[in-house]
Amino acid sequence: MSIRQISSFAAGEWIAPGAGARAIASAITGEVIASAGNSALDVQSMLDHARDVGGPALRAMTFHDRARMLKALGQHLNANKQALYDISFDTGATQSDHMIDIDGGIGTMFVFASKGRREMPDDHVFLDGELEQLGRTGTFMGQHICTPLHGVAVHINAFNFPVWGMLEKLAPTLLAGVPAIVKPATNSCYVTELAVKLMLESSILPEGALQFVSGGLGDMLDRLGMQDVVSFTGSADTALLLRSNKTILENSVRFVAEQDSLNASILGPDAEPGTPEFDLFIKEVSREMTAKAGQKCTAIRRIIAPQAQVDAVIEALSERLAKTVIGDPRLEGTRMGALVSNGQKQDVLAKAALIGSEAERVFGDPENFEVVGADAGKGAFLPPMLFHCANPDTAQRVHDTEAFGPVSTVMGYRDLDHAVEIAKRGQGSLVASVITHDPAVARQVAIGAGAYHGRIYINDRVSMKESTGHGSPLPHLVHGGPGRAGGGEEMGGVRGVKHYMQRTAIQGSPDMLSAIGNRWVPGATEIEAPAHPFTRKFGELRIGETLHTAAREVTMADIEHFAEFTGDTFYAHMDDGAAKRNPFFPGRVAHGYLLLSFAAGLFVEPNEGPVLANTGLDSLRFMKPVSAGDSIRVRLTVKHKTPRNDEYGEVRWHVTLTNQDSEKVAEYELLTMNAF
Amino acid sequence: MSIRQISSFAAGEWIAPGAGARAIASAITGEVIASAGNSALDVQSMLDHARDVGGPALRAMTFHDRARMLKALGQHLNANKQALYDISFDTGATQSDHMIDIDGGIGTMFVFASKGRREMPDDHVFLDGELEQLGRTGTFMGQHICTPLHGVAVHINAFNFPVWGMLEKLAPTLLAGVPAIVKPATNSCYVTELAVKLMLESSILPEGALQFVSGGLGDMLDRLGMQDVVSFTGSADTALLLRSNKTILENSVRFVAEQDSLNASILGPDAEPGTPEFDLFIKEVSREMTAKAGQKCTAIRRIIAPQAQVDAVIEALSERLAKTVIGDPRLEGTRMGALVSNGQKQDVLAKAALIGSEAERVFGDPENFEVVGADAGKGAFLPPMLFHCANPDTAQRVHDTEAFGPVSTVMGYRDLDHAVEIAKRGQGSLVASVITHDPAVARQVAIGAGAYHGRIYINDRVSMKESTGHGSPLPHLVHGGPGRAGGGEEMGGVRGVKHYMQRTAIQGSPDMLSAIGNRWVPGATEIEAPAHPFTRKFGELRIGETLHTAAREVTMADIEHFAEFTGDTFYAHMDDGAAKRNPFFPGRVAHGYLLLSFAAGLFVEPNEGPVLANTGLDSLRFMKPVSAGDSIRVRLTVKHKTPRNDEYGEVRWHVTLTNQDSEKVAEYELLTMNAF
Repeated sequence: MSIRQISSFAAGEWIAPGAGARAIASAITGEVIASAGNSALDVQSMLDHARDVGGPALRAMTFHDRARMLKALGQHLNANKQALYDISFDTGATQSDHMIDIDGGIGTMFVFASKGRREMPDDHVFLDGELEQLGRTGTFMGQHICTPLHGVAVHINAFNFPVWGMLEKLAPTLLAGVPAIVKPATNSCYVTELAVKLMLESSILPEGALQFVSGGLGDMLDRLGMQDVVSFTGSADTALLLRSNKTILENSVRFVAEQDSLNASILGPDAEPGTPEFDLFIKEVSREMTAKAGQKCTAIRRIIAPQAQVDAVIEALSERLAKTVIGDPRLEGTRMGALVSNGQKQDVLAKAALIGSEAERVFGDPENFEVVGADAGKGAFLPPMLFHCANPDTAQRVHDTEAFGPVSTVMGYRDLDHAVEIAKRGQGSLVASVITHDPAVARQVAIGAGAYHGRIYINDRVSMKESTGHGSPLPHLVHGGPGRAGGGEEMGGVRGVKHYMQRTAIQGSPDMLSAIGNRWVPGATEIEAPAHPFTRKFGELRIGETLHTAAREVTMADIEHFAEFTGDTFYAHMDDGAAKRNPFFPGRVAHGYLLLSFAAGLFVEPNEGPVLANTGLDSLRFMKPVSAGDSIRVRLTVKHKTPRNDEYGEVRWHVTLTNQDSEKVAEYELLTMNAF
Repeated sequence: MSIRQISSFAAGEWIAPGAGARAIASAITGEVIASAGNSALDVQSMLDHARDVGGPALRAMTFHDRARMLKALGQHLNANKQALYDISFDTGATQSDHMIDIDGGIGTMFVFASKGRREMPDDHVFLDGELEQLGRTGTFMGQHICTPLHGVAVHINAFNFPVWGMLEKLAPTLLAGVPAIVKPATNSCYVTELAVKLMLESSILPEGALQFVSGGLGDMLDRLGMQDVVSFTGSADTALLLRSNKTILENSVRFVAEQDSLNASILGPDAEPGTPEFDLFIKEVSREMTAKAGQKCTAIRRIIAPQAQVDAVIEALSERLAKTVIGDPRLEGTRMGALVSNGQKQDVLAKAALIGSEAERVFGDPENFEVVGADAGKGAFLPPMLFHCANPDTAQRVHDTEAFGPVSTVMGYRDLDHAVEIAKRGQGSLVASVITHDPAVARQVAIGAGAYHGRIYINDRVSMKESTGHGSPLPHLVHGGPGRAGGGEEMGGVRGVKHYMQRTAIQGSPDMLSAIGNRWVPGATEIEAPAHPFTRKFGELRIGETLHTAAREVTMADIEHFAEFTGDTFYAHMDDGAAKRNPFFPGRVAHGYLLLSFAAGLFVEPNEGPVLANTGLDSLRFMKPVSAGDSIRVRLTVKHKTPRNDEYGEVRWHVTLTNQDSEKVAEYELLTMNAF
């Protein structure tokens, strides 16, 4: 078998490893299959290329442009994923591990593509949070915006998920508009390199948006500045080294770390043997122990069960783990492959020995287990190993030693508060799970242990069919945890995109804020429409275009009739005495829905035209009651426009209803779909 | 005059400075007025007291409880602010400086109190962002929550705002539910000590919620853990020292820094002499140079004007600065007092000399200026000093040397892109301002320089009456900036509260999420109401209580009648052919507002009762059209409850309209006010 030379992609060129390259062995056979490194890499030119070429190109695109780019990249990878599967077996991973890594990574691209279209504007400025009125009359307001950083994101990834690990960082980075330099862990970098090649050959990305380092980063981190971001996944030791870098500290370079984590799973007090939750717990724990041979930062390291159930848990888990077929991951019957390398295997054995000093091994013998279809002496195979720690309150290693393999420890708890205390002894984890059918148990754990966890996963008989697994970070939710887990956050939908943007508070007049956000702000200039705005196509409507309607009087007959017609005979509309006793009303008042309906009657243009449908309404507030004899008029203003497909887009209208004294009686945002 | 002994408040006891205390001189007279330090402080007992006593007491309160506490604290300080004014003159500050510091600090407490009540729940769990449906049928969902950290916040403050500097950190910390240890800068700590004494003597705070250090922190930072937060305001050098602390790095302790900043103000190309914006610019710049004798982290250090206006700017500024009466701040005519100390004065002179190596001093002579009512040889007085830098592209000191006094440098720009480039040379600032009447200028600066700034302040003739000033951080908006400014964020409304909470992604069934958030999630158990929910008081209604109504058919006559009555004759309701040509409709359909109105008719209870008013509606989406002959029914469920005052609270109802085939036709949230 030829040895693959894993090259770097720097400033538009592929650069071979050259002298001093490191050999990479197959996890299954121990044979050298690839060689990685860089002896001729000019890291400054990579940084310059990203900052001077990639960044400006990405920033010239809108969030929607970049979202479409992510979708296209995901589709291209999806069409070529068999090649990624094929090359991945040598990392020791099974086909179902590939699904997590490769399909999981592509799925993450799609979720960010979709969120970019649905939750971000087709523009260069993202509005963060609501308008803040800072003065009495509204001539001076505040609005937070996010804009892309002008630097480069350096992604330093772990070996366990060579594709997902890259894509879960790359998707939010590119969506933000920031170029990336990806440095994978060397042990599995040949998979990442292939994924990078696929993306580059698709020509979907602008030049400079993605570069790749085979081997070490050299002194790249010493060259970072205040517009750059380092996003790291790996060990706590390496994280500490990197975050202590003088340049990073001096320049306040953003540093996101996702590192060691002694994740716990708690069996609820209600989930006794015989309940669906008990069986579910055994299934989740054994899956987390064996998937990816336990090389998951989110794997369950601590199994926290009611003291009375400890024996039953050990028995059921041992029984299930005993069925784990270990061997060549290419074989269909294999349930667990190899660890990524023999070095990793030795590390896990050393850590397991530390845990063994405080806990008894109750399942799995690394000296004696069956390996199917491969040579156990050459590949990096290990069996699942289960420990039991009888003294979780005094033990230390079981709470701070991450054996990054198929290793987990059972501990008993007295009551739920005790279970929470044990979980917290991990000093910050990515995830804790609670298997319970009792919502009160879930709330107690969330409030008690939330501050120590980035994610809490609750599962029971109701959710088990759709649940995604204790160990699966999802692009919609934050991934990361405090303390030992590194204190970082990744993904979490748009939150993850914001890690690569700067939030800026903007203060100014309504016209200034409208121009910056491309979103009309009350008080800003109203543009007189050249025709009724309902007759104007999506592309013709301008932000701020406004219609003022005629007035309509609301009569007592209207109120009576509306009540009779709709059945809404609420006392505030029908009973003057009762309405007067109410703190809000001067007497009988018009129905809110009557006002909305009359308003529509005042502003709609009846003829067939570009307005296709009223699809919804947001943030309606009734501000002043309308009595019989009052009259209302409507101001309708184009607030914001968002293209939805090739045929139509969403128009968000700001609507204000005023009475005969020009007092606001209601305000809301109306949504319509308008043809292009 | 007696010398005040500034004590520490530690674990419930006031502890005098003891041996080795540092003398503090009056900024006006140079005489020693106070003595600060601690020789007998047990920092571990302070941390323990905060973590074991203060934290649990604060966490037992809800966000609303803590918001009320902040309001009461603010009221107590407000009632006693004359004492704070009186003691503050010795820091060199004038009465208008006191307003910024003392009234500004109290105002910050009130804003957080108000936001806590309006934007956070009366509960222990804050919901962050929207629900995420993670499975196809909705049995497994995601929701982010925030819960208070279980540690302590250590606040290290700068000398310039001894009250505001404490309160702007304390308000979000206490609202989050986290105890604080406040360590002010020694030069002005006697003012902070008095404010702390006032708060403690009010007995509004639970024990352990607030402690105070006079003098240094000892080895407190070496004792911090993953649940603690350090929030620092001061110099970049000190920040670097603190953030390099091994314990902070090892334990991923949250570290928020607000440090040096070379803030810029840009005069827009449109703002020529003679425009209101030119005069406004001169006024803003001179105010920022002289307020607090220029000792503001947000002060304008770089004045960026069109090349053609540089002379006019220097002339107008010089004229205005010449009117600045410098002297004893107790005198009514004084416009600028002293710097905080003679040490600070020497530091400013040294930095001004550095700037002077690249720029010409065009106004202000530190060797020759008038001081009214005080001895210029003893007090720390300086005149405003204006420099002109002719080469802002090659100069360095003017962009990186923060002379923390009344010092600023004028630079010319060629075009707006050049102005943005000059502003960015500050390498990260707290704030930049743009004085322009042209929204396009504002947008160009926001997009071009946003990534380098925490705040961009735009002002013109429209907003100038209500604008709050380039230099004023507001509690509603984030305060902080990237890079040189420290990379931190404070305040920004609820964002600032989240700095003291952990965000946790929760995954589980609707029942689990409902219980954790006290907010009904679609798919969760519906509780059958013992009576119509509109007959039940606020306190009686339970989350999840649900009413299912009867069905009502929508007839063509209803549609025709509604159109005629309201005037809403939109073609989708009236013209079958046109409706069919539309991509959304099968033919003529019922008005959305007709459905809302019929829905109300189906669910309201007409008799006088605890429902006082329908105050609004959120997130209405029409999901499926309703044609004549279809029938609709309503499900109305209590989603969330928020007390508003002593008489009533807001009930948020989840409303779903379904048709005869149980398909959803519309969904929204309804708001009512309900009596207790």
